[in-house]
Parts: sequence; structure tokens; C-alpha cells
Amino acid sequence: MQIAKVRGTVVSTQKDPSLRGTKLLLLQLLDEEGHTLPEYEVAADSVGAGVDEWVLISRSGHAACRVQGNEDRPLDAVVVAIIDTIYLEKRQIYNKREQYR
Amino acid sequence: MQIAKVRGTVVSTQKDPSLRGTKLLLLQLLDEEGHTLPEYEVAADSVGAGVDEWVLISRSGHAACRVQGNEDRPLDAVVVAIIDTIYLEKRQIYNKREQYR
Amino acid sequence: MQIAKVRGTVVSTQKDPSLRGTKLLLLQLLDEEGHTLPEYEVAADSVGAGVDEWVLISRSGHAACRVQGNEDRPLDAVVVAIIDTIYLEKRQIYNKREQYR
Amino acid sequence: MQIAKVRGTVVSTQKDPSLRGTKLLLLQLLDEEGHTLPEYEVAADSVGAGVDEWVLISRSGHAACRVQGNEDRPLDAVVVAIIDTIYLEKRQIYNKREQYR
Amino acid sequence: MQIAKVRGTVVSTQKDPSLRGTKLLLLQLLDEEGHTLPEYEVAADSVGAGVDEWVLISRSGHAACRVQGNEDRPLDAVVVAIIDTIYLEKRQIYNKREQYR
Repeated sequence: MQIAKVRGTVVSTQKDPSLRGTKLLLLQLLDEEGHTLPEYEVAADSVGAGVDEWVLISRSGHAACRVQGNEDRPLDAVVVAIIDTIYLEKRQIYNKREQYR
Repeated sequence: MQIAKVRGTVVSTQKDPSLRGTKLLLLQLLDEEGHTLPEYEVAADSVGAGVDEWVLISRSGHAACRVQGNEDRPLDAVVVAIIDTIYLEKRQIYNKREQYR
Repeated sequence: MQIAKVRGTVVSTQKDPSLRGTKLLLLQLLDEEGHTLPEYEVAADSVGAGVDEWVLISRSGHAACRVQGNEDRPLDAVVVAIIDTIYLEKRQIYNKREQYR
Repeated sequence: MQIAKVRGTVVSTQKDPSLRGTKLLLLQLLDEEGHTLPEYEVAADSVGAGVDEWVLISRSGHAACRVQGNEDRPLDAVVVAIIDTIYLEKRQIYNKREQYR
Repeated sequence: MQIAKVRGTVVSTQKDPSLRGTKLLLLQLLDEEGHTLPEYEVAADSVGAGVDEWVLISRSGHAACRVQGNEDRPLDAVVVAIIDTIYLEKRQIYNKREQYR
């Protein structure tokens, strides 16, 4: 999985019928220290992530179908977790609570 | 998924028999601000996208087979949605209607 | 899928038993204007492509198994179509007949 | 598979329900000589790897589901082995015991 | 598939139980002319490749499971063939016998 930050949303009316009701987030990938990477991803969200939150994304069609409700959706990326904390060696790189203090 | 812009089509007569009737679009990938990226993709379209429209592409063989009619096709990329709007933080980066005014 | 040009073949005697009878082509990837990219791929061919022809390759193990006869082969790339024409906006970038006149 | 070094952990409360109980490691990828690469991966661990250990990671949703207990988890990367030794030609590049002497 | 050269082995005791008995080779990727690329891969071998041999590797979890005995293994890369000859246009780029004369 990769670490990413929620930056926005993508809205579509004319789409594969299976995607009705799927929330699509626009995410910026971050490196392991939390610095912004040039890469982005549009992923389906089922964990309720909001703008600025750090999440884990899983990028695999096989993985995307493991999320309940996605079994028949043509997705290649999903948000699987909202991150609370990241520890790198003994340093705390990210803490969701401090971010929002 | 990645954001891409429809640029053209690829036509083939001699192909895997399962691909008969599949429309293959030539798509240029865009970054999250809508700037052109060097990467392109040829993807099967079943949502009826036309030249210059912005779409979402899903790049996974497993995902491609989730689109009705593609179950037995050897595809690794499909157009899954025509984009209406993209919001990045609070800015509207793209609006299909304004694009075509 | 990506556009590629057939450049040669790879021959092997000692291989996974399922690959007996599989023709393996050496392909150079092309960009959307037909310029040579540094990347290559070795892919199984079942459409009968020959040297210098432009083809579409699908790079996914899941997709490769969708080609009849490949169901049990450990392939990650297959030639799925010989390209007749490529249109980019309103220009014709490639026409197989003109190529061979 | 790629060689990676365990650097830390990622903790999440709000996540896909299937991920409860999954330990997520933050891993830095290494090249074949053991030098640090810029790439990282967050992968599920079921072999009990600890910080500074060198491991093999498998990056594929299909592969991740082959690990017992992961069958229904939306993972795209898993730690599959803790490395004892790496031999490159006739040189021993890495030996876990010497690392921890 | 990609062309690669066998450079060594990776040994592990503490690993996913399904990997017992799997030989893991360390491979350097080669370009289509046989020049060394910076990328490497650790792949399971079931064709009996030895150091310095040129092989084809298939990098897909779905493909890896198609090799007999690998059905339940969390692999994302496998050696599928030992290369005898590579032809690029009309030149012979590689011949296993000449390599070992």
C-alpha cells in the first residue's frame, strides 16, 4: 500500500453502471516521510476519508474487489484505511490528532 | 484510476476473436491539475466517450473483466467513467459543461 | 494496452511445460505518435503478427489467461491485435497498408 | 519479489473491517547490493518481521490473497519471508546473523 | 515477460509456510540487446536455471499461480523459461551455446 493525502473528489454521471454510489477521491501520494510525491490516484473510498486526511491506498484490481460492495466494480485502486500514526524507526512521522489540533 | 483525455482511436481487423465489437480509444494521461503527461493508454470504452472528453481509466486486467461484456476479453485497461467535475481542495479544476460552452 | 512493433523472437527449449507451442515475440514499445520508446516486452502471440507489424499488447496475467489456449500459462503479456490504423485527433498516425506499399 | 528493510509501522483504527488484526509494516526497498532505493511500501506482515530486518515483499493483490488469513483482505503487498542470506555471484551480500552480531 | 540473467540466490528460513521448497533466484533485468538494466527481481524458479543463464521472467501474481506447485504461493514473479536464442530483426543477439563455449 502507499500513503496518500485526500485532496478532492471526481464526479461522474455517465459511467459504468456498477459505479453508482461509489465515492471517488483524488489523492496525492506521499513518501515515507510525508513529503508530496508527483503521483496521484483516483480511488474508491468506503472508509469515509475527508480532505487532508492521510490514508492507505491499495492499488490492485484484485484487492479492490475484496472490499465489500466492490465485488463487481471495475476498480484498480481503493482507500483501505485512514492513518492514525506512522512510526519510522523510533520517530513518530505522523499523528492524526496533532494534525488536527 | 487515472484521469485521461480521449485523443483518438485504434482500429484492428486481425485480433483476438473476443475483441470483436470492442471500441478501442487512444487516451493521453493527465495529471491532477489537468496537465498533459507523457504517458498514453489504449483502453476499451463502454461508456461512450468522445474525442476531447476527460475520462477515468482503470488499468488492471482483473478490473477490466468486471465491465459487462468484457468478462472473457484480454484487456488490461478500460474507460470506466466520463468526468463531469474535478474538485482539488476547494477549487474546481475541471467542469465538462464549461469545457464545451 | 500499449502500441508495440514486432522486432524479433525469443526461443526456449527448457521452459514451463504449459508454454510448449507458444510463440514468444520480442516487441519494442512505441509512443502514441509511433516513436520508439526504450521499453520492450516479450509477449505470447496468437494473432499471427510478423516482424515490423504494429500491434497492441495487453500486459496483465489476468488478461493473458483470457486468450483461448492460454488459460493455464504463466504469461504476463500477450499480443491481442495487429493494428490497421491509428487516428490521433483527426490525423492518421499509422496505416498498415501504407507501411507495406 | 523485492528486497526491503523494515523501518516502521502504520497504525489505523478506521479501516476496512477485514484489516482488523493485520500488522502493517513500513518498508524501504533495497537494490540487489543492499543499497537503499527511494521507493517504500506498506505491506501486511504475517512472518513476524522486526525493525531493521531484511525481508522479501510480494506486490500483487493476487499474491497477497494466497497468504493464510488474507483471502478476503484488500491488500496489494505482503511480507513473505525474512531473509537469511543473499548470494550475488559468489559473494555473500547479506547474512542476517552477521547483521545482528 | 522480461529478459533477465541469473545472478544469485536468496535464502530464507522464516517465511510463509507455502514457500517451503521454493528456490528463489536473484535476477538482473536485461534490455532487448542484452545490456544490464538497473532493475532486479527475486523470482521463484521451477525450470532449473543456473547462474549466468538468461531467462524469461513473468511478473504477475496471477501468472505465478499458473506454474504447477505454485497455486497457493504468494509469488509475484516466476522464471518461466531458460532462453536458447534471441533474434532481433535478423541479428542473433544471444545464443546459449555460444555463451558457454
